[in-house]
Amino acid sequence: MDNKGIGIFDSGLGGLTVAKEIMEMLPDEQIFYLGDTARMPYGSKTKETIIKFSKENTAFLLKKNVKMIVVACNTASALALKELKNEFEIDIIGVIEAGARAAVEATVNRRIGVIGTRATIASGAYVDAIKKYDSRAKVFTSAAPLLVPLVEEGWLSNKETESILRHYLAGFGPKKIDTLVLGCTHYPLLKPLIKKIMPKVTVIDSAREIARTVRAMLEARDMTAKKGAGRKSEFFVTDTPAQFNKVGRFFLKKFMVEAKKVRL
Amino acid sequence: MDNKGIGIFDSGLGGLTVAKEIMEMLPDEQIFYLGDTARMPYGSKTKETIIKFSKENTAFLLKKNVKMIVVACNTASALALKELKNEFEIDIIGVIEAGARAAVEATVNRRIGVIGTRATIASGAYVDAIKKYDSRAKVFTSAAPLLVPLVEEGWLSNKETESILRHYLAGFGPKKIDTLVLGCTHYPLLKPLIKKIMPKVTVIDSAREIARTVRAMLEARDMTAKKGAGRKSEFFVTDTPAQFNKVGRFFLKKFMVEAKKVRL
Repeated sequence: MDNKGIGIFDSGLGGLTVAKEIMEMLPDEQIFYLGDTARMPYGSKTKETIIKFSKENTAFLLKKNVKMIVVACNTASALALKELKNEFEIDIIGVIEAGARAAVEATVNRRIGVIGTRATIASGAYVDAIKKYDSRAKVFTSAAPLLVPLVEEGWLSNKETESILRHYLAGFGPKKIDTLVLGCTHYPLLKPLIKKIMPKVTVIDSAREIARTVRAMLEARDMTAKKGAGRKSEFFVTDTPAQFNKVGRFFLKKFMVEAKKVRL
Repeated sequence: MDNKGIGIFDSGLGGLTVAKEIMEMLPDEQIFYLGDTARMPYGSKTKETIIKFSKENTAFLLKKNVKMIVVACNTASALALKELKNEFEIDIIGVIEAGARAAVEATVNRRIGVIGTRATIASGAYVDAIKKYDSRAKVFTSAAPLLVPLVEEGWLSNKETESILRHYLAGFGPKKIDTLVLGCTHYPLLKPLIKKIMPKVTVIDSAREIARTVRAMLEARDMTAKKGAGRKSEFFVTDTPAQFNKVGRFFLKKFMVEAKKVRL
């Protein structure tokens, strides 16, 4: 048993999909969530900058005395996870491995597609992770940089969004993929449109997968929190929390807690 | 005469349109440009954060011993200009006033439209500035948050861009505007599409207007640099300069100089 909290960080609010899955699956755990809203998005920035920001985020969460860090941001997981593990002693989990493993389990024809930010796709992290679980899998990727701004604007079912999504997914048809990994925490909100465009493809949502990984790790090491401990989770952002407090409810539903602004 | 340089900052690379206009109009001036690429964009962030970043950018440029600061970013001009002027002794010019004055000079029917980021439009800064020059002008505004990501992706003439632009401009038709202010340094790259959608409207590009303002101020105060001084301009970014060095050429053309990375 370990009553310390779980630290989660993301470049912004997309990682709240991860926080919510963990809170649902592990209701006794206390969550400390940090959204780096003042410096988001990470997806268009370079490795060096993403590593610097990720280290600062991790250092902040460590001050909350957590037992584990979850990197909810795909871009940070893709570009900074190794450096974080080198620098910090604590267990640090990224979203990429969980999504990759789930895709390998789901695929039948071993042909897997991945969409993500420009930085995530350019890193090759999903291809490496999927190949680690199944060296014979064929992986096809597509950078989809306009999807994050579209989701942040709430353009979830507009005809322009559908057209842009069709543009990004067009290459997967001829490759006959049967599984598509949503390599960014914003994309699950576009699942209805994606299912409309590719109805036969299994869609992997990494938020749920990472929650399963966290639970498995905590249980294997007997590090879960005491039942009914009921300590309140806390949320932090680096920009003023107005936007968090507006859209957070939509992501978190009954788990909604108002965020506090912090300086890193 | 004053051989000190001119400091220019922007949230990213859009302000290079301003730098280029100034370099063309005032070829003897030495420019120090700072693009805060690690923390861009500013347009979706809050006043408090935009003020903090703008003060840090200004403080950096002051160390270059400049005679004037140009805030090339519309969002920072709209939300932080007053605070910068309060905090720093030096002359600080924002892009909003220049664009507003040009719009008032251009309009015949006194009906002016403005597009900008969410933060710029919400600030009301263009409406206030235009009303200052002509209290009887009618000003209509439209926040156009998806245009910056579309321009940054180079989607300058795609059908999706045209459709999204038509969406943002739709409200101006019934208002019978004859002048449209491009309230963001990225938007001039969409001018061909805008002219296609609204062929009869005069489009105000604030980059050119701010260059005229800078020249007028320097000449009025006898603060121009010595002819043929020929000191090299310098460019700085907060993220690694690869993207700057790739797209900077496109913005700056013959004035292109490679950027250095700095920490603020």
